[in-house]
Amino acid sequence: MIAEIISIGTEILLGDILNTNAEYLSKRLANLGVYLYHQSVVGDNAKRLEDELERAFSRSDLVITTGGLGPTKDDLTKEIGAEYFNISMELHEESYIKLTEYFKKQNRELTENNIKQAYFPVGSIILPNHFGTAPGCIINKNDKILILLPGPPKENIPMFENYVVPYINKLSNNTLISKTLRICGMGESMVATKINNIIDNQSNPTVAPYAKDNEVTLRITAKANNKEEGEKLIAPVENEIRNILGDNIYGINEDTLEGVVGEILIENNLTISVAESCTGGLLCGKLVNYPGISKVLIEGCVTYSNSSKMKRLGVSKSTLDKFGAVSEETAKEMAEGIAKASNSNIGISVTGIAGPDGGTTEKPVGLVYVGIYINGETFVKKLHLSGNRQTVRERTVTFALDWLRRLLSKISL
Amino acid sequence: MIAEIISIGTEILLGDILNTNAEYLSKRLANLGVYLYHQSVVGDNAKRLEDELERAFSRSDLVITTGGLGPTKDDLTKEIGAEYFNISMELHEESYIKLTEYFKKQNRELTENNIKQAYFPVGSIILPNHFGTAPGCIINKNDKILILLPGPPKENIPMFENYVVPYINKLSNNTLISKTLRICGMGESMVATKINNIIDNQSNPTVAPYAKDNEVTLRITAKANNKEEGEKLIAPVENEIRNILGDNIYGINEDTLEGVVGEILIENNLTISVAESCTGGLLCGKLVNYPGISKVLIEGCVTYSNSSKMKRLGVSKSTLDKFGAVSEETAKEMAEGIAKASNSNIGISVTGIAGPDGGTTEKPVGLVYVGIYINGETFVKKLHLSGNRQTVRERTVTFALDWLRRLLSKISL
Repeated sequence: MIAEIISIGTEILLGDILNTNAEYLSKRLANLGVYLYHQSVVGDNAKRLEDELERAFSRSDLVITTGGLGPTKDDLTKEIGAEYFNISMELHEESYIKLTEYFKKQNRELTENNIKQAYFPVGSIILPNHFGTAPGCIINKNDKILILLPGPPKENIPMFENYVVPYINKLSNNTLISKTLRICGMGESMVATKINNIIDNQSNPTVAPYAKDNEVTLRITAKANNKEEGEKLIAPVENEIRNILGDNIYGINEDTLEGVVGEILIENNLTISVAESCTGGLLCGKLVNYPGISKVLIEGCVTYSNSSKMKRLGVSKSTLDKFGAVSEETAKEMAEGIAKASNSNIGISVTGIAGPDGGTTEKPVGLVYVGIYINGETFVKKLHLSGNRQTVRERTVTFALDWLRRLLSKISL
Repeated sequence: MIAEIISIGTEILLGDILNTNAEYLSKRLANLGVYLYHQSVVGDNAKRLEDELERAFSRSDLVITTGGLGPTKDDLTKEIGAEYFNISMELHEESYIKLTEYFKKQNRELTENNIKQAYFPVGSIILPNHFGTAPGCIINKNDKILILLPGPPKENIPMFENYVVPYINKLSNNTLISKTLRICGMGESMVATKINNIIDNQSNPTVAPYAKDNEVTLRITAKANNKEEGEKLIAPVENEIRNILGDNIYGINEDTLEGVVGEILIENNLTISVAESCTGGLLCGKLVNYPGISKVLIEGCVTYSNSSKMKRLGVSKSTLDKFGAVSEETAKEMAEGIAKASNSNIGISVTGIAGPDGGTTEKPVGLVYVGIYINGETFVKKLHLSGNRQTVRERTVTFALDWLRRLLSKISL
């Protein structure tokens, strides 16, 4: 099957946003065994979109569009798609009800514009959108398949994974079974170098690395007649990879670092509290992503000022005077202080210089200390991180959680 | 002048790399007043590249390609370009000498393949590559301009800036000037509905809405001979929009909501502290995005447990027993409590049910209370938010910051 991707949006043509959807979908289509020879981008313009669709179907069997499903007049993808196939539009009751409920709940008025989002080409398969108001759809007519997905990646990706992947799998005779290994504390090129031989020598299953949000994932994909057969093909390759990467693999599939840490804490009945300076609440916020965390998270403190470090955490004035707020000593006293103040088993602390200002030759931007107190013992790590303010803070959060995981599981860094 | 970009490389079609060149060049072309209606991507395949070039010149005056200038057999862009214009290739002495020197310096042997990089279509303008071995070139024949740039961004961008920008500037007369208005507290469809007439009736400047991260932006773009003229065209349209949307517009261009709030706080000498439950630190973390916040942010508390709400914030046991942790009363006491405990002018609190569990009929998932104490007065808002755990929490943060902005500026919600 030959596919192509048409990304729709003037904002891409203006360079306002990066076309990450095209990258994601391309990679996943390659995984699924679908050939992709063209990607294209057009603006929110009826004529040009029509032309693009015509051209795409002249050379491909499956066309996936992203964008142009929103409520405004600019959003034309569904209408042009229906026109191409010569199909009329009709109201999809279920989508209309969902839309009405959504707006009611938000105490917002449902405009004429919005109702447009509940209209679909007759006979199309509706793809629910769990993260926004615009459902997608699939039109399959005369051996041509058009799949319309919304533009925002946080809507696009789950819709693709939940509804399009199974659909494409059904079209091809084989089933694709895949398993994702999640890796932290190792860059993509290091992971790729270490398992180079495995990547190169596999054809079924295939192994593909991705880097995202300070972690690396390896997706192992097997083509097989059924799930059991696929899993049997994956198992030896997974073992081989695990032998090489060991405990740098923190989880599989939908696991998250905060979820894995949260589960270790709950299993071991360990309560935790967090004291943050430069991350300003992001570390605690990340832990709270894990829904079960309330069982073990006692509290978080953002002690941004020195006075609050002293008052809330009991960091001593002499430590702050002698070593400064960004120092090993302060990180240690913060971790111990928050654990004591909240009566938790674990105290985790962050203090650093995220920039853009505040750096000196001795203490440059990107210098961060992470402290971890666990039942009487305290550890501190000094980090030199690169990137802008936001990146330094995000990397700190990932490091802190991964290090806590390693300390709790007695895995070396 | 109408341009388009063709990115060449199988690695883009496989999703192995993100097409950042297309984003960069698009943004710069918009800046330079060049229209861009199409971007496309093809693999390292002669026939498809030929077709793409043919098609591009059927609708555009200027085609910029990236990639395919390397030394391998796969790298065909120059050859296909010369063929399209029916021009033969010749050795470019200067490039050949540079190449020879480069390899000598690296102690590497110059292969037949590499010499290919010193061959160019007769009569083309050679663009030196200061960061790699592949020079680019410009072919200008019969009012069609083809600009060939290398693929790696660190070679592509400087070549574009140093040689292509001056070339394009000489060709065109117009500049594009744009201004972005940032809107909070109103959905994209509502914004579009309200300013529908303006969007429809403008051709210069144009007005385009985008939705991203719980806010809406409007980009006003004018075509003019220079910056001043552009700004003069934008001003009346901006005024018209401001008359309609009023204080829902919180900022322009690169402003952020947390930055705007931070600046109001600093200007008015108001200190702030944050007490969070379900957002778990995200609200405080968002404020800390703004580098200047340390002047006014005293501290943040994540009081996830009831005991910590009582101990840290002084929320009364009877309030928690009678109304529950997620209630108007608790939100009020949290906001007042954090302000008092930290001796701040402002205390802002969040308590809610982010899900996926913990909801009841009376208090469903998505129920969130935001409390704001300002110098003796306390306000509480009840929200019903939709989305998953992460979305509910992010929307809460945006609402809380926007509401604080409105309270401080005496803007109604």
